[in-house]
Amino acid sequence: MSGAMHFKNCGSVLVTGASRGLGLQVVGSLASGDFSPGKIIATTRSPASAQKLQELAEKHPNIHIITLDVVNQESIDHSVEEVGQLVQEEGLNCLINNAGINVVADFQTATAEMMIENFHTNAVAPLMITKAFQPLLKRAALRGGAGGVGSMGIQRAAVINMTSLLGSVELNWGERANNFKWYPYRTSKSALNMVSRCMAVDLEPDGILCMAVHPGWVRTDMGGSEAPLSPEESVSSLLTVIGGLTEKDHGSFLNFTGEILPW
Amino acid sequence: MSGAMHFKNCGSVLVTGASRGLGLQVVGSLASGDFSPGKIIATTRSPASAQKLQELAEKHPNIHIITLDVVNQESIDHSVEEVGQLVQEEGLNCLINNAGINVVADFQTATAEMMIENFHTNAVAPLMITKAFQPLLKRAALRGGAGGVGSMGIQRAAVINMTSLLGSVELNWGERANNFKWYPYRTSKSALNMVSRCMAVDLEPDGILCMAVHPGWVRTDMGGSEAPLSPEESVSSLLTVIGGLTEKDHGSFLNFTGEILPW
Ligand SMILES: NC(=O)c1ccc[n+]([C@@H]2O[C@H](COP(=O)([O-])OP(=O)(O)OC[C@H]3O[C@@H](n4cnc5c(N)ncnc54)[C@H](OP(=O)(O)O)[C@@H]3O)[C@@H](O)[C@H]2O)c1
Ligand SMILES: NC(=O)c1ccc[n+]([C@@H]2O[C@H](COP(=O)([O-])OP(=O)(O)OC[C@H]3O[C@@H](n4cnc5c(N)ncnc54)[C@H](OP(=O)(O)O)[C@@H]3O)[C@@H](O)[C@H]2O)c1
Repeated sequence: MSGAMHFKNCGSVLVTGASRGLGLQVVGSLASGDFSPGKIIATTRSPASAQKLQELAEKHPNIHIITLDVVNQESIDHSVEEVGQLVQEEGLNCLINNAGINVVADFQTATAEMMIENFHTNAVAPLMITKAFQPLLKRAALRGGAGGVGSMGIQRAAVINMTSLLGSVELNWGERANNFKWYPYRTSKSALNMVSRCMAVDLEPDGILCMAVHPGWVRTDMGGSEAPLSPEESVSSLLTVIGGLTEKDHGSFLNFTGEILPW
Repeated sequence: MSGAMHFKNCGSVLVTGASRGLGLQVVGSLASGDFSPGKIIATTRSPASAQKLQELAEKHPNIHIITLDVVNQESIDHSVEEVGQLVQEEGLNCLINNAGINVVADFQTATAEMMIENFHTNAVAPLMITKAFQPLLKRAALRGGAGGVGSMGIQRAAVINMTSLLGSVELNWGERANNFKWYPYRTSKSALNMVSRCMAVDLEPDGILCMAVHPGWVRTDMGGSEAPLSPEESVSSLLTVIGGLTEKDHGSFLNFTGEILPW
């Protein structure tokens, strides 16, 4: 059963980094699901070269492609204007901060520049994007949705941060720690987890849910061919988790299977 | 009783950001303790303007002032050369990454530049400094010290990262979260905690202990006048904790009182 059915009460979803990998799969699974959101806003820094996304959009008229380079403030501000025109007084129900990079470097090879580049894309960008979209999210949350005012979830408004198990400081120990000694990536995702938690505190008064989720280890350009999960498998499970979020999940760090992960 | 007595088997200690606040107090407490380390290497980005440090060094000949701007790679490399000449084949026993800044900004005011600046000083710099001093730390660890090969602690070699309770993602919730909504600072310290944990994994084969410690809320320029602890109180307790570190504390996040803190 497709996780997308849980989006039946969600009017609009925006996904960053939708050109390929998990972002593209989220768009595809949402579009082909039984209960597709009214508007699927697929953002990419380069629409012209995102051919698979273009093909999807030709088949599904509820997919809207918008340009967004997540590390460029002008691009962020411009995308908010475009999305505002698209969603109007309905606001934006679900923002998925998915775009990310993995600057692979270990203790010996890591440089300050690498650390900062990965931090900027993976931790700072989700903050700057969420700040910029807050008015549209708030608008959707205020309208209440099917759940009614007071409850939280994607029927009102939610910010989903695509983090990683590798961002767990607790789990970075013993055997696990020896597998992926990626300083820039791990650090950026720990930083994202703090950003996510800080934002949860600040978005709560607006009724906007905010949490961080690990998609599993998935066969994408980033995950590589040895990963155990296909994008379809990961995203089906992810969408079930995201679709079922309630206030109890606010500020959480969840696995794609729905279990709580340690910070 | 001064925490500095626990440093009797520690030949050399390097402290970053020793011009004022906790760094200056660490130097002062170590110098005036009953068992002062042979060499106290006090680094500051601007020795000429660090008057209190200069005065301390005039009284205590084992204080050596060396220039180090923690976000400048040339400065880091140059300081390693100077320290190498100072410690020679003894190596460096204890590196305290203390220098830090607090770029105060909340959800509304935080910019990408602020996030990156705080991240650079508080999380990236300790990594770049530890990388650069690794050969000197390894040299000290190999010599074994009083504890003998196999044990870990400052009698061999240790990297101490001055982190903050505000870097705990777990504790950033409920009442605590509403006190200090400092996005750049909190995020930089969560990132430092991951850097500290990653480095612990990579320094272990060399017998170098690595951990992160919260100094308490202290009356310094950063902590402000309302903080409950004086620098003397914080540092006395800190030095007791640091002086007593063993392998069981490797990779940990401790309070200045010695208790384990959640990530
Ligand atoms: N795959 C895994 O196993 C795994 C595991 C844990 C977490 N994650 C996380 O899941 C998310 C998606 O990963 P993935 O596996 O799908 O990675 P991917 O296949 O490498 O795709 C990354 C996506 O991010 C986009 N992106 C990167 N920088 C961008 C920028 N500045 N502006 C706009 N878009 C940008 C890319 O766009 P372009 O096509 O324009 O480059 C691409 O669409 C990431 O946050 C990743 O850290 C993945
Ligand atoms: N005070 C507290 O309550 C508290 C609580 C938790 C954690 N901490 C942490 O404890 C550490 C010390 O804090 P503090 O209270 O002593 O702060 P402080 O009084 O503001 O002193 C900060 C020190 O860091 C130095 N520094 C900053 N940037 C530097 C750079 N680029 N290169 C070299 N030195 C640099 C400063 O040097 P200049 O004099 O040249 O500026 C100064 O010596 C920090 O890491 C802080 O985050 C403090």
